[in-house]
Amino acid sequence: MFQSLKRLVIGRPIASADEGHQRLSKKVALPVFASDAVSSTAYATDEILLVLLGASAGAAAFTKLIPIAIIVGVLLIIVITSYRQTIFAYPSGGGSYIVSKENLGDVPALIAGSSLLVDYILTVAVSVAGGVLAIRSAFGFSHSWTVPICLLCILLMTLANLRGLKESGSLFAPPTYIYVVSLVTLITVGLARVFIFKNIDAIDPAKVSEEARHHAEGFAGIGLMVLLRAFSSGAVALSGVEAVSNGVPAFKKPESHNAAHTLMWMGGILGTCFVGISVLAAHLKPYRGENDPTGIALMAEQVFNGRGIPFWIMQISTFAILILAANTAYADFPRLSSIIAKDGFLPHQFANRGDRLVFSNGVIFLAGVAAVLIWFFDGEISQLIPLYAFGVFTGFTFSQTGMVVHHIRLKEPRWRWSLAINAVGAVTTGIIAVIVVVSKFTQGAWIPAVLIPFMVLFFFTIGKHYKRVKAALVVPVGYKAVRHTHYVVVLVGKVNRGVIDAIAYARSLSPEKIIALSVVQDPEEERALHQQWDDYDISIELHTVSSQYRELTRPVMAFLDEIDAESGDDIITVVIPESVTKVSAQWLHNQSALALKARLLYRPDTVVVSVPVHID
Amino acid sequence: MFQSLKRLVIGRPIASADEGHQRLSKKVALPVFASDAVSSTAYATDEILLVLLGASAGAAAFTKLIPIAIIVGVLLIIVITSYRQTIFAYPSGGGSYIVSKENLGDVPALIAGSSLLVDYILTVAVSVAGGVLAIRSAFGFSHSWTVPICLLCILLMTLANLRGLKESGSLFAPPTYIYVVSLVTLITVGLARVFIFKNIDAIDPAKVSEEARHHAEGFAGIGLMVLLRAFSSGAVALSGVEAVSNGVPAFKKPESHNAAHTLMWMGGILGTCFVGISVLAAHLKPYRGENDPTGIALMAEQVFNGRGIPFWIMQISTFAILILAANTAYADFPRLSSIIAKDGFLPHQFANRGDRLVFSNGVIFLAGVAAVLIWFFDGEISQLIPLYAFGVFTGFTFSQTGMVVHHIRLKEPRWRWSLAINAVGAVTTGIIAVIVVVSKFTQGAWIPAVLIPFMVLFFFTIGKHYKRVKAALVVPVGYKAVRHTHYVVVLVGKVNRGVIDAIAYARSLSPEKIIALSVVQDPEEERALHQQWDDYDISIELHTVSSQYRELTRPVMAFLDEIDAESGDDIITVVIPESVTKVSAQWLHNQSALALKARLLYRPDTVVVSVPVHID
Repeated sequence: MFQSLKRLVIGRPIASADEGHQRLSKKVALPVFASDAVSSTAYATDEILLVLLGASAGAAAFTKLIPIAIIVGVLLIIVITSYRQTIFAYPSGGGSYIVSKENLGDVPALIAGSSLLVDYILTVAVSVAGGVLAIRSAFGFSHSWTVPICLLCILLMTLANLRGLKESGSLFAPPTYIYVVSLVTLITVGLARVFIFKNIDAIDPAKVSEEARHHAEGFAGIGLMVLLRAFSSGAVALSGVEAVSNGVPAFKKPESHNAAHTLMWMGGILGTCFVGISVLAAHLKPYRGENDPTGIALMAEQVFNGRGIPFWIMQISTFAILILAANTAYADFPRLSSIIAKDGFLPHQFANRGDRLVFSNGVIFLAGVAAVLIWFFDGEISQLIPLYAFGVFTGFTFSQTGMVVHHIRLKEPRWRWSLAINAVGAVTTGIIAVIVVVSKFTQGAWIPAVLIPFMVLFFFTIGKHYKRVKAALVVPVGYKAVRHTHYVVVLVGKVNRGVIDAIAYARSLSPEKIIALSVVQDPEEERALHQQWDDYDISIELHTVSSQYRELTRPVMAFLDEIDAESGDDIITVVIPESVTKVSAQWLHNQSALALKARLLYRPDTVVVSVPVHID
Repeated sequence: MFQSLKRLVIGRPIASADEGHQRLSKKVALPVFASDAVSSTAYATDEILLVLLGASAGAAAFTKLIPIAIIVGVLLIIVITSYRQTIFAYPSGGGSYIVSKENLGDVPALIAGSSLLVDYILTVAVSVAGGVLAIRSAFGFSHSWTVPICLLCILLMTLANLRGLKESGSLFAPPTYIYVVSLVTLITVGLARVFIFKNIDAIDPAKVSEEARHHAEGFAGIGLMVLLRAFSSGAVALSGVEAVSNGVPAFKKPESHNAAHTLMWMGGILGTCFVGISVLAAHLKPYRGENDPTGIALMAEQVFNGRGIPFWIMQISTFAILILAANTAYADFPRLSSIIAKDGFLPHQFANRGDRLVFSNGVIFLAGVAAVLIWFFDGEISQLIPLYAFGVFTGFTFSQTGMVVHHIRLKEPRWRWSLAINAVGAVTTGIIAVIVVVSKFTQGAWIPAVLIPFMVLFFFTIGKHYKRVKAALVVPVGYKAVRHTHYVVVLVGKVNRGVIDAIAYARSLSPEKIIALSVVQDPEEERALHQQWDDYDISIELHTVSSQYRELTRPVMAFLDEIDAESGDDIITVVIPESVTKVSAQWLHNQSALALKARLLYRPDTVVVSVPVHID
């Protein structure tokens, strides 16, 4: 029944041979790879403003908005230029983990990998929270619906991805292009009305909410820490920029060339939109509290003269692109964790593709952690943002540092120039990572700062373990298993059909020696068992040991030690008859046998055989 | 390490032969069996008052207190007289479960048993909450400490009982006698000061708390429902009365005679103290809110002129007797659940004594559920009381009804008279059970009312299952296991030491046929494996099946079906090499093998053998 349900929801299995690579044209690749990065324009400006308004900056918040947006824009240019190098250096795909591993070694690679895994989880949580906030801004449902709707989105994406959602252009292109066109229209019309037609007012905070009105009255000075914190919130706009460099092989030939072009376009769109929306906000002054509609919603309402069709297109396409952005993490997280698992730093199960060709364990893990984050932070994007940027910039830093080493190692043509670009990228992103963690430490940045080192340690420990196991399992030259003598011990309680079957099975193993062992609790039980032995005329020897402490495991272990003491090189096979009933009732049986089997597993030269007796 | 820790906390194992029966004299038996029942005087009066005061009865609460106490006293006489019959009819111990089972059948017995199990759990929760409230009344610590202290008490009792606490007189006698003497002193001195010396005032509610003062101002009429609810709260005083009838064999000879005497004494003390404290309260009027000191604490302070030594003895002995009362459930619950488990209605594990001769699983289960109750109801005794009485009176009803049938069946001398007594008992307690569940339904009485039927259904289902298994395992006359031909399938991945060892082991089983099976995912893997097979010169046949869906379980099952199709009466042994590492790393291995083994368990005529390869 579970199987049928699984087939219904997840779909029929897909054969390995069906794994195809569809090469993407630039027009299709742009939405596929850019949705994550571009979607951050939907919330980055708001997050800068929330920090400044929260510090009672009042109108001054909007004068600081443009400088901050421009600094983020410059940062974007540096990062894009750096990743352009990576695209040409790693035409087979150069994620931070791979670049770090190749150039810097295992530990830096695990730091980069952990940062990215954390980053992907937060991409899901932040994007879903942002998307739901966008439709809440339009429909105005109560905040208590936020978490349920977020969790529903995660559930649906998880099911879709367990079925194996193709990252196809037909899925990604429409929402991404509609969102970009809507946003550019909003910016163009808005700025035209501000600067050319001069027929638009700033938004009236009193109409937004009491909290917005209160923010508008602030006039506190803006300290350096607040500025850094605001900048850190804006820097999340860069998350997702590295996506193109991961996916170079998916482009049509010449891959690197087309990928680099797409990267430039993405950077151009992202930078223009982000700075543009910030300039517009500086003039329309969308004061807002945490529970108010988003800045984009407020501005769209103002620019398009109310909640007409353009407003609705803006909000719904914002929701759509953010859900797509979350969905990219559903491809990235399982892919990266499978690469790390194949390198032996994560349990092998993360490297196994499920029967729909999806790394199902990665998908489920990602969804679970993201759902917990949404639930814990009450679906509030502003509370999730401080956790977000640290992982992003740590990944950038290690990736760029890896590129620096790459240039020094290979000394390709014009390597000094390339090295300079990546060195600037590494130093800049490193500084940003430090700014983020320091300025937002108490707001939540401490979580990834503490978590990532622990993840690295954990991965490294797993890696050491798997290496040791692999070494131990290597077959030495000329290795022959010693031919052991064969001693079989059949464990019996009362005589029943299971015991008779188990003894018959044990005899069929043609052992050198065979004995039935029973642990009895009192002489009465012992006598009764011997009587049964005679009654049923069982031909193998019965040995009883009394357990004065009413235990099973210890007396059995002691008896096996005795046998070993007699003839040391025996291998001992312990045969245990077990009742097998329907699954729902199985827990009522064999609890003592389970404990014994767990213990016997660790005993050298001991093999355990469960002979099932089927009841139903 | 776990073992050493367990030995340190729980103690060394105790041999079965050490289980001794120490016969109790009446003087020692009284505290052992009466602590549970008598301890309820510490809170029963308060609980009646809280209901009446909560209904804004004001001073009228105290005028209704004495009639309610007298009705409870009459009820006590009826129940005691009824149980006196049980003591003589069941000299080997007649708990409600046993009496119901013998006279009424399985289902009534399971209802009585479930009721008692619920009752025992609540005895722990209520008594601990009451005990902690008693010391809080004296020391005045904050309410936020209540739950932690309650849980600490439960933890300590659990550890003590896992060690195997003897229900010895030396443990029970001092606190019980000190409590009774203190309480009798309080009542005597108090009533003397009220009626003879006339030198004591009622307690000033304004000095107790704002809430108490507010209660004192009430003057609402008392409706029937409130009266019934108040009476239901008082009726909990009867819980624990059945203890003596359970424990008749523990008395010195003549057992029934001595037990009956002890029962009378217990009833006398309980009734006198309960009515006495109620009369005193009617005159001293201890108005109190839910967070105020207990009525006994308030009255002791008033009667003994402040918080002197008598006050402290009163409060600390109250705490002590309530903890003892909770402790009796630690003996009763595991004992009853082991009896039910031996009858096959609970998992067998509840019938197994641990290595300290204690039914450890019962102790742990009891402690866990009681702790959850304490935590859920915030350690508030008033919130637990409505759950309590229903189980108690359901148990009484079935026990007395069982006695009625007993008399009709056996027709012993003077049986008509005995029948009349038990019939009155059954009808009365039955009516009380209905009153309790109706009057307190919404306050929490619905919980046992819903839970007990589910428990009965659950126990009954388990019982049916065990019976069916037992029947299926019976060895038919002349049963011989068929001598199967023996086919061994060794499951291999890459060739490593584990595989070589497993093949060597499989060959030592001297099977008729042997084959190595490997599930491969692509032709490349298949070719590499065959190459290894040649390299290591492995002499058994290698069969590869390709799994286009990257699965293990399904292709293996399909291959086994093929084998079965060839030669139907084979028994197939599947040999699986498994890496065994230290416990903490074991989860990194064999996840696929685990799923396969779970599936193979349900396959007919299939035996699974894990050949461990020890890494460390």
